Amino acid sequence: MPATQSTLLTITIGLSLLALAFAVWLSRWVLARARGKPEMQRISDAIHQGAKAFLARQYRTITLLAILVAVVLYVGYGVFRTPNPSDPVSNPRTLALYVTVSFLLGAISSGIAGYVGMWVSIRANIRVAAAALESLNDALRLALRGGAVAGLFVVAMSLLGVGGLFAALSALVPVGSTAEQWVPKIPFLIVGYGFGASFVALFAQLGGGIYTKAADVGADLVGKFEAGIPEDDPRNPAVIADLVGDNVGDCAGRGADLFESTAAETIGAMILGVFLFRYFGVGGILFPLVVGSFGLIASIIGVMTVSTREDGDPMQALNRGFYTTAVLAVCGFALAAKWLLGAPEHAAPDAWWHFFLCGIVGVLTSIAFLLITQYYTEYAYRPVRGIAEASQTGPATNIIQGIAVGMEATVLPVFTIAIAIVASFYLGRASGLTGEHGELIGGLFGTATATMGMLGTAAYVLAMDTFGPITDNAGGIIEMSRQPESVRVITDRLDAVGNTTKALTKGYAIGSASLAAFLLFSAYLDEVFNYTGRRISVNIARPELFVAGLMGAMLVFWFSSLAIRAVGRAAYSVITEVRRQFAAKPGIMQGTESPDYGAAVDIVTKAALKEMVAPGVLVVAFPIAVGLLFRIVGLGAEAVAAFLMVATIAGIIMAIFLNTGGGAWDNAKKYIETGVYGGKRSDAHKASIVGDTVGDPFKDTAGPSLHVLIKLLSTITLVLAPLFI
Amino acid sequence: MPATQSTLLTITIGLSLLALAFAVWLSRWVLARARGKPEMQRISDAIHQGAKAFLARQYRTITLLAILVAVVLYVGYGVFRTPNPSDPVSNPRTLALYVTVSFLLGAISSGIAGYVGMWVSIRANIRVAAAALESLNDALRLALRGGAVAGLFVVAMSLLGVGGLFAALSALVPVGSTAEQWVPKIPFLIVGYGFGASFVALFAQLGGGIYTKAADVGADLVGKFEAGIPEDDPRNPAVIADLVGDNVGDCAGRGADLFESTAAETIGAMILGVFLFRYFGVGGILFPLVVGSFGLIASIIGVMTVSTREDGDPMQALNRGFYTTAVLAVCGFALAAKWLLGAPEHAAPDAWWHFFLCGIVGVLTSIAFLLITQYYTEYAYRPVRGIAEASQTGPATNIIQGIAVGMEATVLPVFTIAIAIVASFYLGRASGLTGEHGELIGGLFGTATATMGMLGTAAYVLAMDTFGPITDNAGGIIEMSRQPESVRVITDRLDAVGNTTKALTKGYAIGSASLAAFLLFSAYLDEVFNYTGRRISVNIARPELFVAGLMGAMLVFWFSSLAIRAVGRAAYSVITEVRRQFAAKPGIMQGTESPDYGAAVDIVTKAALKEMVAPGVLVVAFPIAVGLLFRIVGLGAEAVAAFLMVATIAGIIMAIFLNTGGGAWDNAKKYIETGVYGGKRSDAHKASIVGDTVGDPFKDTAGPSLHVLIKLLSTITLVLAPLFI
Repeated sequence: MPATQSTLLTITIGLSLLALAFAVWLSRWVLARARGKPEMQRISDAIHQGAKAFLARQYRTITLLAILVAVVLYVGYGVFRTPNPSDPVSNPRTLALYVTVSFLLGAISSGIAGYVGMWVSIRANIRVAAAALESLNDALRLALRGGAVAGLFVVAMSLLGVGGLFAALSALVPVGSTAEQWVPKIPFLIVGYGFGASFVALFAQLGGGIYTKAADVGADLVGKFEAGIPEDDPRNPAVIADLVGDNVGDCAGRGADLFESTAAETIGAMILGVFLFRYFGVGGILFPLVVGSFGLIASIIGVMTVSTREDGDPMQALNRGFYTTAVLAVCGFALAAKWLLGAPEHAAPDAWWHFFLCGIVGVLTSIAFLLITQYYTEYAYRPVRGIAEASQTGPATNIIQGIAVGMEATVLPVFTIAIAIVASFYLGRASGLTGEHGELIGGLFGTATATMGMLGTAAYVLAMDTFGPITDNAGGIIEMSRQPESVRVITDRLDAVGNTTKALTKGYAIGSASLAAFLLFSAYLDEVFNYTGRRISVNIARPELFVAGLMGAMLVFWFSSLAIRAVGRAAYSVITEVRRQFAAKPGIMQGTESPDYGAAVDIVTKAALKEMVAPGVLVVAFPIAVGLLFRIVGLGAEAVAAFLMVATIAGIIMAIFLNTGGGAWDNAKKYIETGVYGGKRSDAHKASIVGDTVGDPFKDTAGPSLHVLIKLLSTITLVLAPLFI
Repeated sequence: MPATQSTLLTITIGLSLLALAFAVWLSRWVLARARGKPEMQRISDAIHQGAKAFLARQYRTITLLAILVAVVLYVGYGVFRTPNPSDPVSNPRTLALYVTVSFLLGAISSGIAGYVGMWVSIRANIRVAAAALESLNDALRLALRGGAVAGLFVVAMSLLGVGGLFAALSALVPVGSTAEQWVPKIPFLIVGYGFGASFVALFAQLGGGIYTKAADVGADLVGKFEAGIPEDDPRNPAVIADLVGDNVGDCAGRGADLFESTAAETIGAMILGVFLFRYFGVGGILFPLVVGSFGLIASIIGVMTVSTREDGDPMQALNRGFYTTAVLAVCGFALAAKWLLGAPEHAAPDAWWHFFLCGIVGVLTSIAFLLITQYYTEYAYRPVRGIAEASQTGPATNIIQGIAVGMEATVLPVFTIAIAIVASFYLGRASGLTGEHGELIGGLFGTATATMGMLGTAAYVLAMDTFGPITDNAGGIIEMSRQPESVRVITDRLDAVGNTTKALTKGYAIGSASLAAFLLFSAYLDEVFNYTGRRISVNIARPELFVAGLMGAMLVFWFSSLAIRAVGRAAYSVITEVRRQFAAKPGIMQGTESPDYGAAVDIVTKAALKEMVAPGVLVVAFPIAVGLLFRIVGLGAEAVAAFLMVATIAGIIMAIFLNTGGGAWDNAKKYIETGVYGGKRSDAHKASIVGDTVGDPFKDTAGPSLHVLIKLLSTITLVLAPLFI
């Protein structure tokens, strides 16, 4: 089949639509299931309302911020900036319009992706709880398929958005230009889409992350410690807010995160494909979209094969599904590589299998990240057990040990990333592609194809991730409605698996962000090259660039500080509210009065939204300030690049530290709860609860927000590059 | 006076010898004071013995490691390496001999510097305790002058070593070379001195840091929590080990640290001076030595002016002394700049005052670091109070808040460093110095002179630092020998001041390390230029260099993890030993049997020495591995540079985070002990103790070791650069 533009766009858009249709079918399948007992429904409805209310208000805030940025973008591009002969379109107003509209489309799509993730999860939770009354396998499949609705929707929307924009723009060939000249310019016009997506993702992840942990920490501190009631006890006024948090933090936040990953990295890879135009034509540009749409099909098949025996290990079932997806994605990748990068007229007959091997590198990287994350966060292994052991001498040693484990956990992932980047770069360079002066140019595209390989399983991984909050909620509903012990055993098992899959997804997300980082830098440098005609060198031995890099690393610490502190402050408002309710209604503790769940939900909603603004604005404003400041000495583009790259390095490592440390503390507590070192209510257990609480904002607020931060920095610099030159 | 080489070396060596003589006089003055009551002497003697025993064993281990490195250096340079026409001497064996001997001299001098710091502090402690029986002013002056012995000795030794080596080598003009050709090569031959100094400093700081915190944490956990006895209670078998720790960690460690700072940064600045030879001749090369020796005199005067009224604030007295020193050092700097960089025949008549302004930038940087450190670690200000407030809701919120404060505390220092580096670079560039092709070349020397300006007060700052453990020990002796309350009030006040000065010195040390970083990179790049004739670009947009940078940042986390964990493990052995003693001798708690202090000292000595090896070896081996690995693809020198620079960035920020977080937790506890939030023994106080314990290995083991790590990486790459090319 000839790889014409329309064929490739048809495949991408067609497969994406197919995946969307399948997601709709799956969601109907999930919604058709029983909703269980009335007392369970009451709880589910309360979660439902709280989540919807939060998202509505959060989106209002984000919309305001996004409109502000859109105006700045339009005015900056259309009015203040001097047009450049290398602009993809010559009229500055038209250029400004393209960039701004792409930004808004990206922002809206990212918002929808987050909303859908949450929409399905707050409906699936009660049905999984009901299914757990009967069968483990039923509950498992229901939870995963509920998650898959989110996963498929997010990835398909992302491909559809990028593919659709590309198709729309390719119909708008400007007067005086041929399609041949126009098409390679399109990726530069849609970079705004990635920026819009990551802009919304940052606030979604931050706001959701602050909400979920403020509610969790607040409910725990006031419930377990002050009132002495267990977790998920219905007498705790903050308990519904806690369950809402799982949805808005994990589903909506991670949904937006992976949406923008797919969008930004696809666009970045397309930009690199532009520079291989003379080899692969439009096939090289659209390769990332085609591979992505094949990955959707692989994920659908992977999800549908998952089932377990009633006495089986649900985690193994999910793992089998993952490996099925990975193998199928690799097959699709090979097909696409041979077809689009392997035609003999390309004069580089060996290129396709080199890039295919790069894809394999990407898949292996994702598997390595999953295994390393497992080693550091599951209590079968040394690190978590060490933390549990240290809990015997109190909370201080528990914290010291946890921090040491988190820091150590950065070592293997960094080696993995290092090997993956260098291997895919050298493989790509060995592909035989040469530039105008005979220099080898395939290296960067090699790292891009490795990223595409890693993203091939994105939809499945996101399904596993959303599995987490669904089963967590199901467990909460079972607990709060006081169902029999036998049911709790099932939901507890699923909940434990959900905790693991959440940790794994974070490993996957940071792994793909790291691998993609290089691709996004290269896109930035290409953008600068496109404008200035010179390849800038990011030489951090120059004092200005060293200083910019230093500030980039500092941004990561500053941002983490703000995010962690935000949780503390928002949690404090929860504690105050719960104390107020306990004092005002003494009957709550006797079970004669029911607490006002809505008030607690309302308080934490307001607090989280207020707290998300400062760190979010910091991330957007800082790189712009650096770029404009160093532009004065003629080093704007270089300084921003150094800022971006060192911030990415620091962000990757800090995110791994925070995610892994938090996950390890969590499971050290769970390990002690299995009965070791005195089990529940022992001093070691109390110490481990301190570590778990400290880890909460690490792993669910600051860490995941850093994934988005890394990519937002890349997309913001990509979009604003013309302003720094 | 003509600035001939012999004049300048005479001044440097003469003033350094004068400072040494003055230090000897001061130490006799200190030793002539009364040693107090017999029960105080018994304690002091026990500390004395423990410290000596630790240092003897530590030095044995370090000696073995240093000999190993010396052999590797000699063989690497003399046998394996192919000689390079740019080698300063043509015979590889001779070159190897110079490098190895410099290394060993640096190592030995660094060891002596550490030893002297401790020698005086374990003798001054009892005398300060005795003086405190009578007068605050007496005790203050005694403690500061005791500290000054260490401070002057360390800095003078360092200048004497570098100056002496320079003098010795300049007498050894090789056959076929003129003095004119030979002198500019000397700084490259003595880089080994800086490496030797930082090598020993790393192990001294690591071993001492592990020792002091293992003893502290171990004694606290088993004493306060398990046995319920107060701090410094003589019934605790680990209490002497705790007091020993203050000496071996703070005195010996920081002494070696600042010794190597002075040595490495002086040599680095001399190398930059070489490249301005055609302007300033030997005056530019020896400028750092002359400025340093003027700073010694400024510090002597500063120390001697300090005194306080009996009802005065001792911290204010110390601050007055610091500002006196700073003003005098600035005057000396102006003098040296005018003389050596300002002569009309240099054809750059404005150069001297530009570089003088750079020196002012350095002094202002040191003051900024002191003020920022004060803001973040003293309980008069918001950050520490916030931690205290968060302690009310338990240890978890205390930890969360402390980590957030530590991360936030990196912001202002980074801006300070950024401004200092850029300002001094641009000032230096505006000096009018040009290279062969008319390019402006004064910028890097500008950053170097800023560093020299900052180092001008080093001896005074080190005196303030050693003041810390001396007063801490004095307080411990007073406490353990149960002296009257009125005396304790005096030692408590001095101890509080000592805690502040220790924190300030860490701020100063990391500030100077950051400013010096740029100077040391430049020296490395000059070394590479010297060998290859090309200016390498540290372009982290190249995948190999990005990956190397990523590994550099990761090294900082890995190292911190090892250091923190080492404290945990060594503390555990202390706890086990104390429990054993309590079980074996039940009379200890009744006060009828005396505990075996020596056994506890012995245990922690062994544990600390064992634990210091892994992180130390990691720091030495990792950059070498990176250099040799990337040498395969012809990027050894570049990859090492990227590794070094990003590791430096991460190390600076991590060190500030750890030092400040630890200091803030410490003082949040002290703030609660003043009576707020329920005061001593309240729940908030208990929570704050957890934070304090977590902060211990942060601020006294990992943080200070990172200062040395940064500089060790610079010196090791500088020395081994020829192997990576």
